[in-house]
Amino acid sequence: MNIFVINSGSSSIKYQLFHSESAEPVCSGLVERIGLGDSLIKHTVFINGEEKVTKLELDIPDHEAGMFEVEKLLIQPGIAVVHNPDDINVVGHRIVHGGETLTQTTIITDEVKEKIKQLYPLAPLHNPGHIKGIEVAQSIFKKATQVAVFDTAFHQTMPEKAYRYAIPENFYRDYGIRVYGFHGISHKYVSGRAVEYLQKPDAKIITIHLGNGCSMAAVNAGKCIDTSMGLTPLDGLIMGTRSGNIDASVLLYLIEQQGYDAAELTTLLNKKSGMYGLTGYSDMRDITGMMKNGSDAAALAYEMYAYRIRKFIGAYSAAMNGLDAIVFTAGVGENDALVREMACRDMDFVGIHINTEENSQRKPGLRDVSASQSKVKVLVIPTNEELEIAQQCKALLQY
Amino acid sequence: MNIFVINSGSSSIKYQLFHSESAEPVCSGLVERIGLGDSLIKHTVFINGEEKVTKLELDIPDHEAGMFEVEKLLIQPGIAVVHNPDDINVVGHRIVHGGETLTQTTIITDEVKEKIKQLYPLAPLHNPGHIKGIEVAQSIFKKATQVAVFDTAFHQTMPEKAYRYAIPENFYRDYGIRVYGFHGISHKYVSGRAVEYLQKPDAKIITIHLGNGCSMAAVNAGKCIDTSMGLTPLDGLIMGTRSGNIDASVLLYLIEQQGYDAAELTTLLNKKSGMYGLTGYSDMRDITGMMKNGSDAAALAYEMYAYRIRKFIGAYSAAMNGLDAIVFTAGVGENDALVREMACRDMDFVGIHINTEENSQRKPGLRDVSASQSKVKVLVIPTNEELEIAQQCKALLQY
Repeated sequence: MNIFVINSGSSSIKYQLFHSESAEPVCSGLVERIGLGDSLIKHTVFINGEEKVTKLELDIPDHEAGMFEVEKLLIQPGIAVVHNPDDINVVGHRIVHGGETLTQTTIITDEVKEKIKQLYPLAPLHNPGHIKGIEVAQSIFKKATQVAVFDTAFHQTMPEKAYRYAIPENFYRDYGIRVYGFHGISHKYVSGRAVEYLQKPDAKIITIHLGNGCSMAAVNAGKCIDTSMGLTPLDGLIMGTRSGNIDASVLLYLIEQQGYDAAELTTLLNKKSGMYGLTGYSDMRDITGMMKNGSDAAALAYEMYAYRIRKFIGAYSAAMNGLDAIVFTAGVGENDALVREMACRDMDFVGIHINTEENSQRKPGLRDVSASQSKVKVLVIPTNEELEIAQQCKALLQY
Repeated sequence: MNIFVINSGSSSIKYQLFHSESAEPVCSGLVERIGLGDSLIKHTVFINGEEKVTKLELDIPDHEAGMFEVEKLLIQPGIAVVHNPDDINVVGHRIVHGGETLTQTTIITDEVKEKIKQLYPLAPLHNPGHIKGIEVAQSIFKKATQVAVFDTAFHQTMPEKAYRYAIPENFYRDYGIRVYGFHGISHKYVSGRAVEYLQKPDAKIITIHLGNGCSMAAVNAGKCIDTSMGLTPLDGLIMGTRSGNIDASVLLYLIEQQGYDAAELTTLLNKKSGMYGLTGYSDMRDITGMMKNGSDAAALAYEMYAYRIRKFIGAYSAAMNGLDAIVFTAGVGENDALVREMACRDMDFVGIHINTEENSQRKPGLRDVSASQSKVKVLVIPTNEELEIAQQCKALLQY
């Protein structure tokens, strides 16, 4: 069986192809700058441990044209991974926002598409691109079962006390304003790997996804009970360019006293804040470099970043009344040893001791970087959202 | 020595008079509805364990007229507490916002008044009323030393990682946007009493002030290291009518998708949210009543209220890497046994066990309601902001 995983954005399509028997993709690729001119495709085929990379620069006016080029690459002689587009049995789509109505991985019907469209006001940057991706996949992979996997779904097990805001109930009922949480596919994947490693199905785990976006989840016996992002992916941790938690009055002050409007604030808090706002850089490697050169701003930004993680670890330990493991994942979480060390510093009251020597090494795969006396396991687990999507497709269709 | 403590709002003046040798006030009072018509004064004199209450209904057009009436009551035959207004040696003023420039209890000079006025944009609802209070006190108690005690001052020991937001630095530098924290006079008072009780000057204490406004502070060895309110008293815990923490994107969504403006959002989040938004009532006694009558909304609101306290207890335990005591104070914290019990429920991982039997009793004064096996002391300590202000005045002036 061939499962083609698509993550379709407003101007990009990311994809991977899996054969059902393997956790390794057969090929992966990225179509960039759709409709923006100077479009690019990078397509990589994995054959016998080798990578064959094809790069194309061409005009791609829309998602359909982009997917048509991908289709050609899939069957191109010399790098073909299938004989024919009809060999794709399943297309698994990553969908950021499933709201409260789409809470499970599901076969895409007209009704499901309609529900994804109804969520446009809550996910204006994401869901429209997903619908485009679904529609071109339906037109090109005609024989495939189209499946939607939602980034919000894993968080739908949260209790009401965790997902409701303390505003009048009609804002929840009429507009759907509540905590949804994001990165759910990643939190589910790495918490699942952690449970396997711990061999403890009822483990209390805090997953810490640190990429460009950053979020944490409290996972008790496999179920998410709280998470740090909210209605949107703005809230919670400090991120590459996003502020995370901030007093809502800061917005009201900037509007009323300084003349800002909502569009400016959206840009400020989502694109100009976080590590970028504090240091001028959003990439932690640049900020580490600044810090080595003695930058106070970079040192403060790192402290703030780690301090907020520590506070969420404490909060979620209290929420679960216990803690068996914390898991670092995604680009920063997997690769930035200093962030992990600072997030675990002076946390022995919570039972966390990191092995700084082991933590400072770079190694592939799941790693246990706990010190021997640590009651709480400190794990580094590479995330793999595409594999999680493929596996959820398989589970749903019972292949 | 006579210390007259004033808390002057936009349309009210609260006051108490202390003789330096006693922690009990000689008299207390409240002038209400200044400039609004149907003004009221309630003046209570405490003599030999008895209370003599005087109530006046009269027209009070401004703060000066109000304070003039109070002056007459202070010297009124039969209930006189001083012979002459000049017998007042010190007037201690509660000032909500001292910003970053007024970080200590201080004698009020023209420069101090100017700084309080410069903070109007950050505290538009409070500081203008305080200036009125200062000016009438200066004109009536001409011989007294006027002292300002700031609600933000106790929090000024927070490290930068705790008080900065992850937005560009110029918002901090140019507009003073940072975490200030409030209820500092109360947090200082009850944490001081807790340190005395524990006989441990380096104790790690979390103070939980639950009144109409609610906030928490992490107090390590007498110094505040973090607090839950932010730029304004909106952020953090769920309060009587305020939302506390909320994804900033909720505001942007309501502006962009639903047509709200900043004034409407200010009212929504400050006056219509919190327990009132969730249940229709802001007084916990009403909500307890609803819950007893089976209201799901009331039960949810209580759970949300307590859950957020538990998460802050966890976060601040992590921030201090330890915890010796938690302290409940203010109207709800001192009187609502259910809130205390729910805030301590399933917290044995953090070392908290409440004695539910002892907790359910009503008794005056400092109370230890910890269970015997509790590693963390659970204390109920009545706050006394007026006494704290009087004591700070005494300490400053070295009486």
